[in-house]
Amino acid sequence: MRICVIGAGNGGQALAGVLAQRGHEVMLFNRSAKRISGITDSRTIRIEGESSGPARLAYVGTDIERATKDSQIIMIVVPAFAHASVAERMAPYIKEGQIIILNPGRTGGALEFKKVLDSRGAKPGYVIAEAQTFLFASRIAGPGLVRIFRMKNAVPVSALPAKDNHILSEVLPDVFPEFVIAPNVLYTSFNNIGAVFHPAALLMNAGWIETTHGNFQFYLDGISPSVARVLTKIDEERCEIARALKIDPLGAVEWLDFAYDVKGRDLYEAIHNNDGYQGIRAPVSLYNRYILEDVPMSLVPISYFGKSLGLNTTTIDSIINIANVVMGVDHWKKGRNLDSLGLSGLSVDAIWEYVERGVKPS
Amino acid sequence: MRICVIGAGNGGQALAGVLAQRGHEVMLFNRSAKRISGITDSRTIRIEGESSGPARLAYVGTDIERATKDSQIIMIVVPAFAHASVAERMAPYIKEGQIIILNPGRTGGALEFKKVLDSRGAKPGYVIAEAQTFLFASRIAGPGLVRIFRMKNAVPVSALPAKDNHILSEVLPDVFPEFVIAPNVLYTSFNNIGAVFHPAALLMNAGWIETTHGNFQFYLDGISPSVARVLTKIDEERCEIARALKIDPLGAVEWLDFAYDVKGRDLYEAIHNNDGYQGIRAPVSLYNRYILEDVPMSLVPISYFGKSLGLNTTTIDSIINIANVVMGVDHWKKGRNLDSLGLSGLSVDAIWEYVERGVKPS
Repeated sequence: MRICVIGAGNGGQALAGVLAQRGHEVMLFNRSAKRISGITDSRTIRIEGESSGPARLAYVGTDIERATKDSQIIMIVVPAFAHASVAERMAPYIKEGQIIILNPGRTGGALEFKKVLDSRGAKPGYVIAEAQTFLFASRIAGPGLVRIFRMKNAVPVSALPAKDNHILSEVLPDVFPEFVIAPNVLYTSFNNIGAVFHPAALLMNAGWIETTHGNFQFYLDGISPSVARVLTKIDEERCEIARALKIDPLGAVEWLDFAYDVKGRDLYEAIHNNDGYQGIRAPVSLYNRYILEDVPMSLVPISYFGKSLGLNTTTIDSIINIANVVMGVDHWKKGRNLDSLGLSGLSVDAIWEYVERGVKPS
Repeated sequence: MRICVIGAGNGGQALAGVLAQRGHEVMLFNRSAKRISGITDSRTIRIEGESSGPARLAYVGTDIERATKDSQIIMIVVPAFAHASVAERMAPYIKEGQIIILNPGRTGGALEFKKVLDSRGAKPGYVIAEAQTFLFASRIAGPGLVRIFRMKNAVPVSALPAKDNHILSEVLPDVFPEFVIAPNVLYTSFNNIGAVFHPAALLMNAGWIETTHGNFQFYLDGISPSVARVLTKIDEERCEIARALKIDPLGAVEWLDFAYDVKGRDLYEAIHNNDGYQGIRAPVSLYNRYILEDVPMSLVPISYFGKSLGLNTTTIDSIINIANVVMGVDHWKKGRNLDSLGLSGLSVDAIWEYVERGVKPS
C-alpha cells in the first residue's frame, strides 16, 4: 500500500521506517528541507530498539503534492499546532477515498482539520480520523537513525464522522494492527491524558527545569504529592466535561492501568508504581511541546467545551493562564475553540449528530 | 516602657529579646504553653547574631489579660491568619491609649483587626497600626535561644486611621527607630512584596521542594526566568490595583533596590544580583506560611480589591486557585475580603476617608 507520512520529526521518521519495514511504499514529506537533508538522497532510515533494521522509503522530500497524490493513507505526524497549516497545504490535493489520520489529534484535531480542508475547497469523499496518542515512543538518534523505545499495544482511533469507522476497520489491520477503533472523535479527543499530565507538571517544576536544565526524572521526581493533587483536579474537570458530552472518560488512574498495567490508590501512587516512567527525564526547558502543543491544542479546547456546558474549569484555566504568562502568548486566542472546531452553538445532541453522522442542524 | 509581645515564634521571641535589651519591660504572651515551656520560668532569651546577648523579660505566659493589661504598646507577632482570633481574645482587655501594632499586617491586617475589636466591644481610644514587613529575619535556635540574621533599616508602619500617625511618631522612636511612618494602611497593605514573591515561587517549584525537601536556594535557584515572569505579572496586577486605589506602589524591582540596594533591568536580574538571598534555602514543604499566610491574607484580599475596581487579576487568581487545590482549602472563603476588612460597598474616596480619618459614609 502507498502510505504518505507528513512530518519527519521523532515520530514521523519512526513511523515511516516501520511502515516501510512492513512492506509499504512510503512517501515521507517534511516542510523544511533541512531536517530531512541527511535522508533525502539515501531514502533510508535505520531503526534501533524495537523493530530494528534498515528501511528504504519510496520518497523523501518537500513536495506535498507528490507525497500525497497517490497515497491511500496519509499519516499526519506533526505537532497539533501545525495541523491547520498542514490542512491548508494539503487541501488542493486531497482525493476521494484517501484516509487522513492525525497521529495524534490532541483535542479536536480531526474536527479542526476537516473544517480547514472543507473551507479550503478539498473535494469530498476523503476520510479524516484521529488517534488518541502516538504509536511509539521514539527519538531521532542521528541522520537516518531512529530509536524506538516502545511500541504501544492499543491506540484508539476514530474517523469523523464515526460512520466512516468501518473504512478504518477494513484498512488499518493491514497497516497497524495496534490501532483499535474508538466510538467517535469525542472519545479520542477527551481521553487526552497528556493534557492532564504535561502542562501542570511542567509549570509546577518550572524552577527545577530551568535551573538544572531538566536534570531530574520528570514523572517520578517532578510529580510530587502536591503536583499530583493538581493533576487529579485537572483530570476531574476533564472527566466531568467528557461526561456532560455523554462519553465515558478514562480517568488518569484507569488510564495508567490500561496503558501501563499499573495500579494505585490515587494518581500519585499509580504514577510512582509505574516502572515505565523510570529514566524519563524532564525536558531541558519550558519551550517544549508539553506546553506549546498541550496547552493550546488540548487544555484550551477542553476548557472551551467546559465553559459552553456551564462546567467548572477553574484548575485547567489557572494552568492555561500561568502558561500564557510564562510563554508570553495568549493561548486562549491561539488555541482551538468551538468555532475553529466547527461546533459553535451546537447542543450536545447536535455535536453527537455531527461526530457520528457528519450532519449539522440546518 | 511596658511592651507586650503577642506570639512567641521566631519573630516574637526575637522582638521580645531585643526590646528587653533596649531596657523595656517586656510581657511575652503565647497561646500554647508548649512553645514557651523552656522560657516560662527563666524568662530569659539569649540572642545570637545581631544584637547578641541575654535579655530578661518581665513576664512569659499564656495569660493574655496579664500580658496586655498595663502595656503601652502591644506588638502582634503571629501569622496574619491568626490576627482575627487574637483580636477576639484581646478585645475585652484593650484600654484607651494602648497602641497595637501588627508585625506585619500583610494586606488589610489593621482593617480586619479593628473590625474584630470593635465588633467584640473593645473600648474606643486605642490605636491600631500595621507594619509593612517584620523588623528582623530571625529563627529560634533552641530553648531560649534566638538567632537574628538581619535587622531591617526602615520598616514602614501606619495607624488606622492615619490621623493617629502622630501618636506613632511620638512613641515609636524610643522603641524602634527602625520604624518609619507610611501615609496610611493602604500603603503598608499594598506594598506587600511577600504576596508577589512567595506563593507563586513556591508553587512553581512544588515538585522540587517536595521531592528534595527544599534542598536548593529558594530565590536564586527557584526563581528561574519563567518563574520571574509570573512574579512580574503578579506584581503588575498588584501595582495596577494600588494605583486605582490612588496610592503610588513600589514595584518589586524598586523594592529590591529600596530594601537590599540591588539593581537589575528586570525582576529576574535584580533577584539574582541580590547577595542577601545567598544561602536562603527553600522551605522543606508547601505547608508553609509562604502559602498558608500569603495566599489568604495577602493575595486573596488584593484580588478582591482588584475585582471591586473592575481590574484584571488573572495571574493572582490562577495562583490562588492552584494553591486551593494543593492545600485542599478554599482560600477565597478562608481569606480576607472587603467585608471582613469593613470596606464593603465603599468607593475609593470613601475608603480613603476611612483609612485617613476613620469616618465611613453614613
